[in-house]
Amino acid sequence: MAIVDFDMSGAQSFISENEMSQLRNETEDACVKLASKTGAGNDFLGWYDLPLRPDGDYCRLKAAAEKIRKDSEVLVVVGIGGSYLGARAVIEALTDPFANARALAGEGGTAVIFAGNSISPVYLSSVLDIVKDRDFSVNVISKSGTTTEPAVTFRFFKELLEKKYGRKGAAERIYATTDSSRGALKKMADAEGYETFVIPDDVGGRFSVLTPVGLLPVAVAGIDTDALLAGAREAFGEYNEAAFDVNACCRYAAARTALYRQGKSVELLVNYEPGLHFLTEWWKQLYGESEGKEGKGLFPAGCDFTTDLHSMGQYIQDGARIMFETAVEVRVPERDLVIGSDADNYDGLNYLAGRSMDYVNKQAAKGTAMAHIDGGVPNLKVSVERLDARSVGGLIYFFERACAVSGYMLGVNPFNQPGVEAYKKNMFKLLGKPM
Amino acid sequence: MAIVDFDMSGAQSFISENEMSQLRNETEDACVKLASKTGAGNDFLGWYDLPLRPDGDYCRLKAAAEKIRKDSEVLVVVGIGGSYLGARAVIEALTDPFANARALAGEGGTAVIFAGNSISPVYLSSVLDIVKDRDFSVNVISKSGTTTEPAVTFRFFKELLEKKYGRKGAAERIYATTDSSRGALKKMADAEGYETFVIPDDVGGRFSVLTPVGLLPVAVAGIDTDALLAGAREAFGEYNEAAFDVNACCRYAAARTALYRQGKSVELLVNYEPGLHFLTEWWKQLYGESEGKEGKGLFPAGCDFTTDLHSMGQYIQDGARIMFETAVEVRVPERDLVIGSDADNYDGLNYLAGRSMDYVNKQAAKGTAMAHIDGGVPNLKVSVERLDARSVGGLIYFFERACAVSGYMLGVNPFNQPGVEAYKKNMFKLLGKPM
Repeated sequence: MAIVDFDMSGAQSFISENEMSQLRNETEDACVKLASKTGAGNDFLGWYDLPLRPDGDYCRLKAAAEKIRKDSEVLVVVGIGGSYLGARAVIEALTDPFANARALAGEGGTAVIFAGNSISPVYLSSVLDIVKDRDFSVNVISKSGTTTEPAVTFRFFKELLEKKYGRKGAAERIYATTDSSRGALKKMADAEGYETFVIPDDVGGRFSVLTPVGLLPVAVAGIDTDALLAGAREAFGEYNEAAFDVNACCRYAAARTALYRQGKSVELLVNYEPGLHFLTEWWKQLYGESEGKEGKGLFPAGCDFTTDLHSMGQYIQDGARIMFETAVEVRVPERDLVIGSDADNYDGLNYLAGRSMDYVNKQAAKGTAMAHIDGGVPNLKVSVERLDARSVGGLIYFFERACAVSGYMLGVNPFNQPGVEAYKKNMFKLLGKPM
Repeated sequence: MAIVDFDMSGAQSFISENEMSQLRNETEDACVKLASKTGAGNDFLGWYDLPLRPDGDYCRLKAAAEKIRKDSEVLVVVGIGGSYLGARAVIEALTDPFANARALAGEGGTAVIFAGNSISPVYLSSVLDIVKDRDFSVNVISKSGTTTEPAVTFRFFKELLEKKYGRKGAAERIYATTDSSRGALKKMADAEGYETFVIPDDVGGRFSVLTPVGLLPVAVAGIDTDALLAGAREAFGEYNEAAFDVNACCRYAAARTALYRQGKSVELLVNYEPGLHFLTEWWKQLYGESEGKEGKGLFPAGCDFTTDLHSMGQYIQDGARIMFETAVEVRVPERDLVIGSDADNYDGLNYLAGRSMDYVNKQAAKGTAMAHIDGGVPNLKVSVERLDARSVGGLIYFFERACAVSGYMLGVNPFNQPGVEAYKKNMFKLLGKPM
């Protein structure tokens, strides 16, 4: 069984076989461009075979995670964008939703709290409050060390750590994930003696979750990073070997391209497990930042079902016909519950007695896909067997690779992000930043 | 000063004065239709003057909240859609992001945890685990009592409460917010002796946050519900009195209608305070469910800035030109921090030393609006003075009222949601539900 399955039967009334086979050559060309490193942005292809590249610092990273788990009730991860979303996506998919609360209550584990991902003094004050009477460490993640949000935030935590543990003690609790040789953070880390991990030069932020950027926080959360990387490696093998007709990655890229060319404006990534919420946020960055340029690209949006069927459901069913849906399905849940019988049966649910909740959830997913297809919303489906580290690794690589292929088919450089600078330029001007 | 200000200067290059004045009559007609209760869906206008209507049970509701705060470490709120999003939006806007974690750690307060808003057994198992060794109460919120997600979920909590406290003890910890006389939950509550609160017949789910649906959980979270209601009342007065040219509510409705008619497909509600994330989710239901019908309506999406400038920012700046932005601004933050000077200045941030973080956040907001306008994204702005209960009450009423006006201008019934039934019908068939 493949690590990630792709099913487009829910789009067959929208995309003809003919349309798909016409896209075969184009898709394969994009794959070749990618594999041969001859396309636009080819200096940022480090993510492509990353799961196969040995990282000399990996054992040191695991040791650092172990140390943090021993000496810290909280790890504050300071980063934004690609230095934030990947780790959060993996952690929320694979840990208990109350893992942080339990760690903060002293029930074990290290809470992983994200900061430096906004400029809100309200939020930052709360994080400073929650760590000030607890043992904590900081993982600051920034290629340059000068990105405003994490840099401003790190100043506060550095000061607090130095007040609490002294300058040397603080240095032993700060881990910098940054450039191998250049940049402000690297310079500071060397001067202060922080342990550092490297963001490879050829891996862009939104593709960096399987580098130390994602791996250190993920390991601190107690997740099996070996399995995560193994899943990505497995996916790499599959997409290199499988022919177009059975290549999940190529078919997803081709199908979404077909729907975009038919005039769809929005791709909605949906799930039926609340833990996948941040995987969707990570996916939004991956696709939005890779494809949203030159006036082109699908607008990436997300829904958590069945929750959002009771909010966005009406629009999806009956509103403007501008979107298609890609569902992420987990075939076997990590935990399940059996619905009991009730003598009074006021709620009329005894017809479900003896059924597992997951069974009900799966029928909701089937019924939703049918209803949305009827309503004119093409449905694609991406499935994994379980929500475990291996599958999440596979999903990450699946989406990354499909994104690159899809971006080349759109005719853009999927690896740059020129538009992100625009607001910063204005902000720096308003703030009077020295040139 | 108005409780909610509306500024459309960021759209002036997209909407002419002429366009706005052409919409004046149409907007005023929609307002009259609403006030005179002569439009479609006029049996669901209870929300309209709700802030003015005395609720005989309000003191009892506050007493129930006080009791829960005394005898429970956790309140589990079981509800979905409108029986979930409003309370969560208000609570997250007005409480510390770690309030639940602190309550669970025994540092005071009652954690408010939402369940029954999905069919995930993984999530539900975790909530059951977190409450089983703690004192807890349940607020089950459902008009009918038969909506699958909350009904299935409530069975588990009822069983756990009865095991823990006995049937009578459990009954004293269950609060049912439901229909005044009909429905499965009302019947069960009467039979078991649960304290009940009423969802008014003429208030639909997405407009129910200022009824007991929202007020009980909000009060348990320690929020000043008097101020919340007073803010809504204040907004009601403003929108009744102010003429079109200075009526924030009418102008927002007219501006978004103008942009929709120009061909925009997506409205992006953005904020610069992480605490507003769920207000956006609430807004997405309000607008998506009210307007997304008959193949029409703006697709409602949300971003938390500056966080998402590092993920969705590229698309917004340079991708397909299908959206406009509505920013929610908080003029004065509840807490602020001053950026310190650093002797080494590795990060080059000393030019900000002595500045408050909020000042930087505000320049980011200004710079972003300028950049997005330059990029072809019209910018609307909704502002409140502070993020306090009064302002949030005002914002809620502002968005509700503008939504109704806007829906009438779109030519739909803003108060029904026929499309929500489609997936349920399929699901019930698949589950073999008796007819």
